[in-house]
Amino acid sequence: MGKDDRSKNFNLKVPKGTRDWTGEDAALRDRLFETVTTVFKRHGATTLDTPVFELKEILSGKYGEDSKLIYDLQDQGGELCSLRYDLTVPLARWLAMNPSVQSFKRYQIAKVYRRDQPAMTKGRMREFYQCDFDIAGAYDAMIPDAEVLKIVNDVFKALGWESYTIKMNHRKILDGMFKAAGVKEDLIRPISSAVDKLDKLPWAEVKQEMEAKGLSADIADQIGEWVQRKGGDDIIEFLKSDPVLSQNEDVKKGISDMELLFSYLDAFDARSHVSFDLSLARGLDYYTGLIYEVVTEGSAPQGKGKQQEVGVGSVAAGGRYDNLVGMFSGKPIPCVGISFGIDRIISILKARGESTQRAKDVDAFVMAFGGKGFTGMLTERMQVAQELWASDIKTEFSYKLKPKLPQQFKQAETAGVPLAVILGEEELKAGKVKIKVMGITDENNPEKDGVLVDRKDMVTEIRKRLPTANGA
Amino acid sequence: MGKDDRSKNFNLKVPKGTRDWTGEDAALRDRLFETVTTVFKRHGATTLDTPVFELKEILSGKYGEDSKLIYDLQDQGGELCSLRYDLTVPLARWLAMNPSVQSFKRYQIAKVYRRDQPAMTKGRMREFYQCDFDIAGAYDAMIPDAEVLKIVNDVFKALGWESYTIKMNHRKILDGMFKAAGVKEDLIRPISSAVDKLDKLPWAEVKQEMEAKGLSADIADQIGEWVQRKGGDDIIEFLKSDPVLSQNEDVKKGISDMELLFSYLDAFDARSHVSFDLSLARGLDYYTGLIYEVVTEGSAPQGKGKQQEVGVGSVAAGGRYDNLVGMFSGKPIPCVGISFGIDRIISILKARGESTQRAKDVDAFVMAFGGKGFTGMLTERMQVAQELWASDIKTEFSYKLKPKLPQQFKQAETAGVPLAVILGEEELKAGKVKIKVMGITDENNPEKDGVLVDRKDMVTEIRKRLPTANGA
Repeated sequence: MGKDDRSKNFNLKVPKGTRDWTGEDAALRDRLFETVTTVFKRHGATTLDTPVFELKEILSGKYGEDSKLIYDLQDQGGELCSLRYDLTVPLARWLAMNPSVQSFKRYQIAKVYRRDQPAMTKGRMREFYQCDFDIAGAYDAMIPDAEVLKIVNDVFKALGWESYTIKMNHRKILDGMFKAAGVKEDLIRPISSAVDKLDKLPWAEVKQEMEAKGLSADIADQIGEWVQRKGGDDIIEFLKSDPVLSQNEDVKKGISDMELLFSYLDAFDARSHVSFDLSLARGLDYYTGLIYEVVTEGSAPQGKGKQQEVGVGSVAAGGRYDNLVGMFSGKPIPCVGISFGIDRIISILKARGESTQRAKDVDAFVMAFGGKGFTGMLTERMQVAQELWASDIKTEFSYKLKPKLPQQFKQAETAGVPLAVILGEEELKAGKVKIKVMGITDENNPEKDGVLVDRKDMVTEIRKRLPTANGA
Repeated sequence: MGKDDRSKNFNLKVPKGTRDWTGEDAALRDRLFETVTTVFKRHGATTLDTPVFELKEILSGKYGEDSKLIYDLQDQGGELCSLRYDLTVPLARWLAMNPSVQSFKRYQIAKVYRRDQPAMTKGRMREFYQCDFDIAGAYDAMIPDAEVLKIVNDVFKALGWESYTIKMNHRKILDGMFKAAGVKEDLIRPISSAVDKLDKLPWAEVKQEMEAKGLSADIADQIGEWVQRKGGDDIIEFLKSDPVLSQNEDVKKGISDMELLFSYLDAFDARSHVSFDLSLARGLDYYTGLIYEVVTEGSAPQGKGKQQEVGVGSVAAGGRYDNLVGMFSGKPIPCVGISFGIDRIISILKARGESTQRAKDVDAFVMAFGGKGFTGMLTERMQVAQELWASDIKTEFSYKLKPKLPQQFKQAETAGVPLAVILGEEELKAGKVKIKVMGITDENNPEKDGVLVDRKDMVTEIRKRLPTANGA
């Protein structure tokens, strides 16, 4: 590390598809983490934190053709490892490794890695956060599923969101439909993935894709007639009354689950925002029952945010996957869960102008002033800062020996500090300090130039004048 | 993902040197994160979160011979990347990338990666947490340095630790000493690293190492005579009065810094636990001024923890590094910081028997009972749970349709839930629920069998009986 290194030309950037988090974004992210964690814990969840990389073989065979997006570590001798691609497979691996655990309600907030083509504008990154909540264990039907959806409601309620839809469907209903329509077994997943595009493409294009995949036009039309329905109890009524579907065993099983689910959601007061959408299919192969996706129709309120268009998009998704743990241990543990798209939710919060929170959250700035021969009063500023820290008041002061008063005010203003504590030699000798609420412009406010208080009352007087918590 | 995969033999483990965090360990870790974050924020710090991997060239040339421990990502096309080795180089990279930022007080809590030989018993892992606090910016001498040390005091005070020592020294004093003793320039770092072992080895062995490195016995003896001193102001007195050392320019500069530092620590009421230790050298090359290391003499109190011996060890370390940012941008920004060894601190907290915190933190368990024809009252349990969640009471209930009462009590007991809310059909009809504090064994306690309360008072009555926050 000699001086020669300075001349070296560094490529000063972060790797493609990654980013640093700081300032308002980090503050917004922390607030979001706190919100979701509070909800998860209210439901009795505990956290699981897994290594950022797993043995390569743990991940292989789990993600279908997306496996090519997995980041591998270089073979430097020893085990072959890959960066985690999601938080679901590590959970399944942990459950399989701990056979004494037969039930587990866990959350995990962590970054995952996908060597995808980054599209920053769409929020598609190579390193991004996932925030997962899952309930593992063999329970009576649909009870944990209903609690997961209750949690979805609780999270968005806590965020103050009104306009979102929880689209849900059931793999058994979907597969039963395909079978009832005459789709051959090996075409079910491909046709399912075509149906899943109905939220983005018109029916004609989806039908075209189905025909290209080898489905006859009349079967496609039959499917189209069915899957374009969405609603609530009326969808259950439709499925029960349709002469073909009502006879299919898979569909029947799915209907029974959905009826239970709706009654449980009613008990949880969590039926609002729900749409039973027969076109929802979800990409991942491992789902076995209920599936859901939360979408928001979120253009920002006019004139509030910088970006006006947020667009429709998925902000959370999940479902029931009863066989994944069994892939590791041979002993299946049924699971149901949800993954919140943290980065996307943050983009929307920002677009809605909710990043008003100060990145830096300091309560008081201790400063000093004096006339000719001013020493800077550094020790005195330090002592006062120390007293405030001891009282849990977030405090800063200038790291200069002899800072000028305007400099100190500017530093406090820039950091958005609400209160100044101003020390003067005469005042300190008289046992007093001045407290000034920053930014008072009203000439008639008696505290415009600050107020002298006894040093012993300093903490109390500061507390009186602090904005209430999170009052930004 | 067909059924065939089930037969596959997975190597069910985490990669060597990594671990999962869950249960009490995770709860203890979260408490520690909260403690240090509260202290950092009280001092006006904001967070910076960097990607888990950096461009390989960013890390190269920073860690000397330890560079071989860096994990590289496989070359899958595109940029060559490596997992971060610490949080200091990413901070320096960020500062260099953001030239408009001339000062920054940041903390970062994140995992770092070293392909070292793991030694679990010593707490040496390949993936482990670092928790860093740094102050970047050109300020008057020793002011930020003093605040970093104040933070060290605040963190261990918040953890309730009494027995720890903040060993400190100054690179300029150390280097000045070596020069004054006649050590040649190219031997200074090797001799420095020998001196650093004085906390583990007797002087005779350190002297042997020095001689092996090419130092003459009399120079070694002179150094030994100097570096084995430790204390407080008396060390400053010694340095100022020693006829050789007091004339060395580097030593003089160091003395002036240490005098300032001590006066600032006094102002911060942070002089306790400090030991000016002339043998402290610290391994990393990039330190340029004050260096420090926090050690604890921590065997656990008899009989409290499972492990009795924790041993002496470093739990935090850091110093001033004024040239690292300049290696990236050519424009140096002076920095001073500290890194807390989270995993080691957690081991010590556990050994001290402080992992009493419940891993699962649930307030109330809603259960139901009934006689012949008992329906299980699932909907009613769900409705009550929903009411409690809405009042921010952490609540669980059995996911069984018709759970037996002893089963429900057992589930609540196992999870350490303090309160049961018991529903009976008759009671519910009469608008009442029973609240029972779990684990009352005193026959004379009037609430031993629970107390019937009006449903409308349920939340209030539960709150009355909840243990106070963190009262574990």
